[in-house]
Amino acid sequence: MSQPPPNVLSFAACDPSSGAGSHADALTITGMGCHPLPIVTAITVQDTSGVKEVLPLDAQWIDRQARIVLNDVPVHAFKLGVLGSTKAIETITEILLDYPEIPVVLDPVLASGQGDVLTSTEMIETIRAMLLPRTTVLTPNSIEACRLANVNKDQSTYSDYSLLEESAYRLLGLGCQYVLITGTHEDTPEVINALFADNECLRSDAWKRLPHHYHGSGCTLSSAIAAMLATGKTVPDSVVIAQEYTWKALAAGYQPGKGQYIPNRFFRNEEKEDIAQNMHGVQIAGKS
Amino acid sequence: MSQPPPNVLSFAACDPSSGAGSHADALTITGMGCHPLPIVTAITVQDTSGVKEVLPLDAQWIDRQARIVLNDVPVHAFKLGVLGSTKAIETITEILLDYPEIPVVLDPVLASGQGDVLTSTEMIETIRAMLLPRTTVLTPNSIEACRLANVNKDQSTYSDYSLLEESAYRLLGLGCQYVLITGTHEDTPEVINALFADNECLRSDAWKRLPHHYHGSGCTLSSAIAAMLATGKTVPDSVVIAQEYTWKALAAGYQPGKGQYIPNRFFRNEEKEDIAQNMHGVQIAGKS
Repeated sequence: MSQPPPNVLSFAACDPSSGAGSHADALTITGMGCHPLPIVTAITVQDTSGVKEVLPLDAQWIDRQARIVLNDVPVHAFKLGVLGSTKAIETITEILLDYPEIPVVLDPVLASGQGDVLTSTEMIETIRAMLLPRTTVLTPNSIEACRLANVNKDQSTYSDYSLLEESAYRLLGLGCQYVLITGTHEDTPEVINALFADNECLRSDAWKRLPHHYHGSGCTLSSAIAAMLATGKTVPDSVVIAQEYTWKALAAGYQPGKGQYIPNRFFRNEEKEDIAQNMHGVQIAGKS
Repeated sequence: MSQPPPNVLSFAACDPSSGAGSHADALTITGMGCHPLPIVTAITVQDTSGVKEVLPLDAQWIDRQARIVLNDVPVHAFKLGVLGSTKAIETITEILLDYPEIPVVLDPVLASGQGDVLTSTEMIETIRAMLLPRTTVLTPNSIEACRLANVNKDQSTYSDYSLLEESAYRLLGLGCQYVLITGTHEDTPEVINALFADNECLRSDAWKRLPHHYHGSGCTLSSAIAAMLATGKTVPDSVVIAQEYTWKALAAGYQPGKGQYIPNRFFRNEEKEDIAQNMHGVQIAGKS
């Protein structure tokens, strides 16, 4: 290889199972043909069943890790996951504002897949006020979308489309350019993702719900979107390709321990399944 | 994939360029078909030109990260890189002693490829006294081998084979089962690696020296050996396969920034070069 691949810089916490977090981002970014620049925001103690402890790094160490590679390597997209502290969010926002032309994918990991709280109320307020205006694509699940948008959710948003729509439009109103709300955590027979921008739903896609629970599906999707943006693709095209990639990685996943399955981000070497048989566009309930 | 792959647990520092360290280990382990369990020992501030700062983690955080996944996921090989502190070396040795049946590959990263010191004199003494007796395969370059073995080196060890041999036998005498001394840092026209055990040189292999300097070649080689051990292969077979893999990853490498090249650990998707054309067994100077 003579021409180096596009570079994706991720801010994320480390997960010793590698199912989620910084290493999962690096594997996904590489699986999508880009080069990863992993900036560590926190150390976690977790296994495939859940997060036990989080050690956020001092924000100055996040700043130093990021600035040194930004001065060395041209970055083509940013991906943000667990950020660790309010001060870290402020520090990272300052870095992003110094590189205004680079797209930002923000996966707002408010809780782990098992419900462990990873982001405090103060951090959510800082994300809303500082980060969302600098976000190109926000990728909350439906629960995170309602929480970030301060929409009261006591039922499945995919059963009541008006809640989903209201969350998306409020989040766009806070300044992010695109919102992709994912339905992995819903109880619908199919997983439905919906992409919003400019006060409309640009597209919604559905896949059959896979039989297992997965550790790191959100990291995979958001890192894959960032990788496709880094190659110069549009946001809608990046989302479609990343969704297909993520579905395939989950379908090829495996269970290394006693808990959740982990996506196989290099399924391409092993499986040839045709995603077109699995994905189809959908009209979601109540969509006008 | 229904059957999960073998698992390799690595203790290593994070490198925000991903050329070396924990993320490089994870990419290599995955590239070799295994699942990575990355335990972070330190955060570094570095780019593709060198290491600027190291923040070692408190040993208790290393212990907690490792113990939780060891209780969840069956580990088939350990790989050790930069460990960060004397206390960390002690803590990690205790963990290894609790799992005496699992092979250990130790890459003694005494200095980075650019000469930055990553391991203090006290840490080297602790490695000699505690870690080497629990090491299956030690993978020093010729400079590190002499330093670990307290052999005085003022010339190329591959020009004076007796120095190389003396270092290897002293290191075996300290308790490790195999020593693979690498010649990447020498000035010989070919890179020569030599594998020692039971007071003999089992094999030595040579490749043409590639034109660039690489960031993370040692991490790639040692992680690939650990991955092959995790699949149940013998040490000599693991070394041969890992050497071929590393040579190909380096040959397919790219330069993401202003400094060194980075191995392409997923070259298989792109290149079909036949390693058999590049590698050949050698008689090293003075070998009896």
